[in-house]
Amino acid sequence: MKRKICVVVLNRANYGRIKSVLKAIKNHPQLELQLIVGASALLDRFGSVVDTIKKDGFEINETIYMIVEGENPTTMAKSTGLAILELSTIFSNLKPDIVITIADRFETMATAVAACYMNITIAHTQGGEVTGSIDECVRHAVTKLSHIHFPATKLAKERVIKMGEDPKKVFLTGCPSIDAIANIDLGMDDDFIKRNTKQGVGSEIDFRKPYFVVLQHPVTTEYGEGYKQVQETLSAIHELKLQTMWLWPNVDAGSDDISKCIRGFREVHHPDLIHFRKNFTVEDYAKLINNCACLIGNSSSGIREGSFLGVPVVNIGSRQKGRERGTNVADVWYNKDEIKNAILKQMKHGKYPKDTLYGDGHASEKIAEHLVKHKIEIQKKLFY
Amino acid sequence: MKRKICVVVLNRANYGRIKSVLKAIKNHPQLELQLIVGASALLDRFGSVVDTIKKDGFEINETIYMIVEGENPTTMAKSTGLAILELSTIFSNLKPDIVITIADRFETMATAVAACYMNITIAHTQGGEVTGSIDECVRHAVTKLSHIHFPATKLAKERVIKMGEDPKKVFLTGCPSIDAIANIDLGMDDDFIKRNTKQGVGSEIDFRKPYFVVLQHPVTTEYGEGYKQVQETLSAIHELKLQTMWLWPNVDAGSDDISKCIRGFREVHHPDLIHFRKNFTVEDYAKLINNCACLIGNSSSGIREGSFLGVPVVNIGSRQKGRERGTNVADVWYNKDEIKNAILKQMKHGKYPKDTLYGDGHASEKIAEHLVKHKIEIQKKLFY
Amino acid sequence: MKRKICVVVLNRANYGRIKSVLKAIKNHPQLELQLIVGASALLDRFGSVVDTIKKDGFEINETIYMIVEGENPTTMAKSTGLAILELSTIFSNLKPDIVITIADRFETMATAVAACYMNITIAHTQGGEVTGSIDECVRHAVTKLSHIHFPATKLAKERVIKMGEDPKKVFLTGCPSIDAIANIDLGMDDDFIKRNTKQGVGSEIDFRKPYFVVLQHPVTTEYGEGYKQVQETLSAIHELKLQTMWLWPNVDAGSDDISKCIRGFREVHHPDLIHFRKNFTVEDYAKLINNCACLIGNSSSGIREGSFLGVPVVNIGSRQKGRERGTNVADVWYNKDEIKNAILKQMKHGKYPKDTLYGDGHASEKIAEHLVKHKIEIQKKLFY
Amino acid sequence: MKRKICVVVLNRANYGRIKSVLKAIKNHPQLELQLIVGASALLDRFGSVVDTIKKDGFEINETIYMIVEGENPTTMAKSTGLAILELSTIFSNLKPDIVITIADRFETMATAVAACYMNITIAHTQGGEVTGSIDECVRHAVTKLSHIHFPATKLAKERVIKMGEDPKKVFLTGCPSIDAIANIDLGMDDDFIKRNTKQGVGSEIDFRKPYFVVLQHPVTTEYGEGYKQVQETLSAIHELKLQTMWLWPNVDAGSDDISKCIRGFREVHHPDLIHFRKNFTVEDYAKLINNCACLIGNSSSGIREGSFLGVPVVNIGSRQKGRERGTNVADVWYNKDEIKNAILKQMKHGKYPKDTLYGDGHASEKIAEHLVKHKIEIQKKLFY
Repeated sequence: MKRKICVVVLNRANYGRIKSVLKAIKNHPQLELQLIVGASALLDRFGSVVDTIKKDGFEINETIYMIVEGENPTTMAKSTGLAILELSTIFSNLKPDIVITIADRFETMATAVAACYMNITIAHTQGGEVTGSIDECVRHAVTKLSHIHFPATKLAKERVIKMGEDPKKVFLTGCPSIDAIANIDLGMDDDFIKRNTKQGVGSEIDFRKPYFVVLQHPVTTEYGEGYKQVQETLSAIHELKLQTMWLWPNVDAGSDDISKCIRGFREVHHPDLIHFRKNFTVEDYAKLINNCACLIGNSSSGIREGSFLGVPVVNIGSRQKGRERGTNVADVWYNKDEIKNAILKQMKHGKYPKDTLYGDGHASEKIAEHLVKHKIEIQKKLFY
Repeated sequence: MKRKICVVVLNRANYGRIKSVLKAIKNHPQLELQLIVGASALLDRFGSVVDTIKKDGFEINETIYMIVEGENPTTMAKSTGLAILELSTIFSNLKPDIVITIADRFETMATAVAACYMNITIAHTQGGEVTGSIDECVRHAVTKLSHIHFPATKLAKERVIKMGEDPKKVFLTGCPSIDAIANIDLGMDDDFIKRNTKQGVGSEIDFRKPYFVVLQHPVTTEYGEGYKQVQETLSAIHELKLQTMWLWPNVDAGSDDISKCIRGFREVHHPDLIHFRKNFTVEDYAKLINNCACLIGNSSSGIREGSFLGVPVVNIGSRQKGRERGTNVADVWYNKDEIKNAILKQMKHGKYPKDTLYGDGHASEKIAEHLVKHKIEIQKKLFY
Repeated sequence: MKRKICVVVLNRANYGRIKSVLKAIKNHPQLELQLIVGASALLDRFGSVVDTIKKDGFEINETIYMIVEGENPTTMAKSTGLAILELSTIFSNLKPDIVITIADRFETMATAVAACYMNITIAHTQGGEVTGSIDECVRHAVTKLSHIHFPATKLAKERVIKMGEDPKKVFLTGCPSIDAIANIDLGMDDDFIKRNTKQGVGSEIDFRKPYFVVLQHPVTTEYGEGYKQVQETLSAIHELKLQTMWLWPNVDAGSDDISKCIRGFREVHHPDLIHFRKNFTVEDYAKLINNCACLIGNSSSGIREGSFLGVPVVNIGSRQKGRERGTNVADVWYNKDEIKNAILKQMKHGKYPKDTLYGDGHASEKIAEHLVKHKIEIQKKLFY
Repeated sequence: MKRKICVVVLNRANYGRIKSVLKAIKNHPQLELQLIVGASALLDRFGSVVDTIKKDGFEINETIYMIVEGENPTTMAKSTGLAILELSTIFSNLKPDIVITIADRFETMATAVAACYMNITIAHTQGGEVTGSIDECVRHAVTKLSHIHFPATKLAKERVIKMGEDPKKVFLTGCPSIDAIANIDLGMDDDFIKRNTKQGVGSEIDFRKPYFVVLQHPVTTEYGEGYKQVQETLSAIHELKLQTMWLWPNVDAGSDDISKCIRGFREVHHPDLIHFRKNFTVEDYAKLINNCACLIGNSSSGIREGSFLGVPVVNIGSRQKGRERGTNVADVWYNKDEIKNAILKQMKHGKYPKDTLYGDGHASEKIAEHLVKHKIEIQKKLFY
């Protein structure tokens, strides 16, 4: 009998980070994929990732709405609670052998808590990394609830073991997000341009000319600061007068503040060079950043996929604090001038050499093998 | 302005482990106590701990029902989700500065998840201990979500630090449960007897003569085994023909199986020497075990309060596996004869000397001081 | 394409009232049955109706836990809320054309609210009847949310129309519960006796000799009175010294009080002639009451199935106040002597003639036909 | 002791319809006001009504987030379920004597279901009216759950009684929304202009010159049609080339479609004469429509407050179908030309005479008196 592997995809970042694993599971003769899609991955406001998933050929077992609106710390907690309520019903009906939970978000936590109380083995990707925001403590808590670990880097693996996990259950596989971009042509092409024209709002981007990409999420532990933080970035970009593809932030507490700031800026300054989008497909996002003059903001993609692709990145503020990074990343604080100067330096430098810090493109096949062979043991034990 | 300290008490064990801290907070001029009582602490089936709390003079800010009935792994997860939904509303209305969460239960997890996403500082007691059951991984996950740690033992403190917590935020205070029993007369007396006669079901206990106490909870990670496990204990006790005070198990997954086994046994064997009770006050429970011939089962109270009081304990199965223990504990497996023999040995041995492994009776005052002085910092960071 | 008919069965009474419809749908070439089982129908404490449903050969699409423990007015509301949360996810995944909701319970309300907001056509059975308890207002509110009505009696049909429903959507079908008992041999036989021996607790019943059946539920609008109410019944039965099959009450607010009273009575009086059971199959319950000397309590089965079978019934208190009844029912108040006298009179009278007030045994086939042919219109309109 | 009256305000329309009652309760010596604010009334996207409520001097007992994001039929059901979960905890802690629920929305339903199961007396305003959308059946279902009725019109009162409510508990008070506007100066003035300049997005309105007001909500029972429906209105307004104050729609299923259509229209047509706002205070909204050239859309305010103020209204589509209306309302279908023609006719006609169909401005004092004197009886009974 095939092992049933349940993957819970609850936002656009999740999907990019796990798509290659979904494929590997789907194609493996000894594994059966159970796919749950929910939360912001269902919402139009975040680009309806669910449609992309269907287009990519995956069959979805269940969809669940679970975001309590408000985008503040209270509703983040409530969404987590609601997700646990929903996921437990679904797990009890699907009866998976292993549940995969991704990285460090509230959806990740909900998945881990539900599966853990239900005596279902949990496999966790991206454990052992270090950052700022609420993600930092959630990531490590999820490690403590998980039974199998697929860290992306050597140092992350060491940290997972240091935290008391059994070394025999911690596997350095690299990050599956690299798989998705390692073996495809990431040059700018007409198809990309066709697909990505007349999407989003604001004036169109000419992808044949230099452009910036901006993606700045709220930092939940600095809730209330988002408005001011993103205003610095907006002003910097506006003054640099280069065409810019700006992605709306994720659903975390404080997202509303950032959106409000952007909308206000649009009303007042009519920034004709900035185009706003909700979402790209995984591959198009890779192309987008691979060909940009500079990626600005605080998305982990600058550090993770960015290092592999050698994208010049300006990373702003505390959200990625402590995360291992390649030479492609310049760190600055929430300050217009710092941001501007760093961008100018990065433009001057141009592309960086490829760095396999976060993986060499073979993570998903390794993960699938472990999912097949791993001996299931529910009772965890601090390993000291 | 006083610091608002919110304590969430969601079952009878929680209450015994935190009562002395509640008092210390209530009496501290710089602290304000916010008390939330819910879950099985509200249920008659578990002895309505809420009534005891009121009798003890504590004012309750909010009560919340949150147990989804079923007593299986699915409903344990659902109860956790529901608890997070409820607690987040309450926290957003009470606005505490610090939330205290206790030990390792699903209620503990819910409290930690809600507070953590709401950027509220979390203080955790009993971190760093090692056991079996789901409690093991929940306890360490809660450590990773918490900002201040009050471990009970030296080794527990070391483990919390090893897991990557900042040593400056880990305080060896001892367990507050010891405070509650360190300074009171625990001899058997007429008042105790009066208070505890005609409570529960089954024939009455003569507390002046030797008696056993039994408390055996389900082991969630061995869900489905509870019926057989407790039958061994029931048979052993029945054959030893000594009067016995048997406490009903807690609300964890599998509790139903244990209750069913007990009820079936009662219908068939009419065990005239066994009395069944739902709950004792904190102090009466201490007297009860302090004067018993042997405490049998898998409750941590045998190890924790038991070591301080020198109670002869027969600890059954995997639930307490790995927990530090004094010489008073004899470990056996789920096996009638093993259990019987161990009990007979413990009866022969009688009381053990006092052991302060889990504290010397001054935990709560130390905890209160830390709660006053601790510098609040929301952003956590893996400390390696 | 077949019409997808979703039936939500959430307790033992629901099941008896809809089983014949489940069969009719399952067997109809133009209908596809979607079956959801949850709430107390999953709980061992209420006899695990889910197992009976499986044994009866129905395939269950989803199971859901949704009872918030406490059995008080607050948890009854919470269970309703939780049920709506759960059912909406399930409906959105199953996409039924019509949802059937049964009678007047909080599960009924939850089903109706979820389906109604989701623009799913709702068919309601047992609308238009009049009773006491919370059921009274819930039943009529569900009528106002439903699109197709299958009342059981002529008067009920008239009331549904009076309340403003479109007469073309109100169909007098009789109650499906009568179908289940109309065409089977309901004489006492060895198989019944074999199946129903060594079930439940208390001394065995000799089904060849006269016996009582008691089923007394809480009256939610008289919450807090249940203990006293059932004590009168217990005393009456105890004094009559006839063997008695007593069924535990349902999950409504106040159920706990009744159970507590029964358990207390058992501990003190050791009523050797009373046997306690959680549940019977639909057919065995019909046999049980068909052959009893008297059915006592406040279950609607005395009035509904009882009138068809001619069972002598003593109906206690306000729960069935206003419900149409045959001559087989004697009404009394919560009073030991009134109860005793009424039972003695009913025993003297013996069986009553068959009365088809609640149906002639062909409800389910009529309902199935309407489900096939009914024109689906979501927008309701007060019909005056 | 004062009677505790709990009012649950969960969106901006609720607030305008109950504000005068809040005042009357607050000022009544025998009543104590308990105020709960939640759902979209907390959300910035809908104008943060909570801030207005605080500015108006009301003390809020509890706030609750309860909107599950998605704005589709599934999430509407889920929000209702979540609201019941939350409200039941709050009611159990606040212990009100009477709960007031307003009109016909999902929040209304949630309040009624929670209170009803908790044996709390429910007073309902705006029962007995007839409309389209899901509101139609929800309104009547809430009537069946409520104990006291405060209908706004004579016909509505008759309908409530026809549905089987006890005539002694149905009081024709008029609509409290009229109170709020009956006794204030509703002329355009500098203060209004000052307060309402530089709010919202799009070019500024000159309130001294003719302007339109548009407010078009989704029709939940026509889910999926909203985009096309509002496009007709947008085109009509765009072509009429008069400055327009456009309010964003409410949170009902389909709201997203409408917002998407509006945003798309803005991006393509840059409609310089249309200004977009989230919310007005109750009084400013009255001024806004009292001085407009025409009120267009499907808000009940055109019919209710509009008839009292004599505002020329063009009412589009099915949402208000069947609602009693004065001569000020011209009904049209979702069709650009119909809409344009009707607007032109209404502009030509100008203001209508005052009509007290929905009340004379004294509803709240009458309601407060009934709240004081009403005999509380929990058990309802169909009154035929």
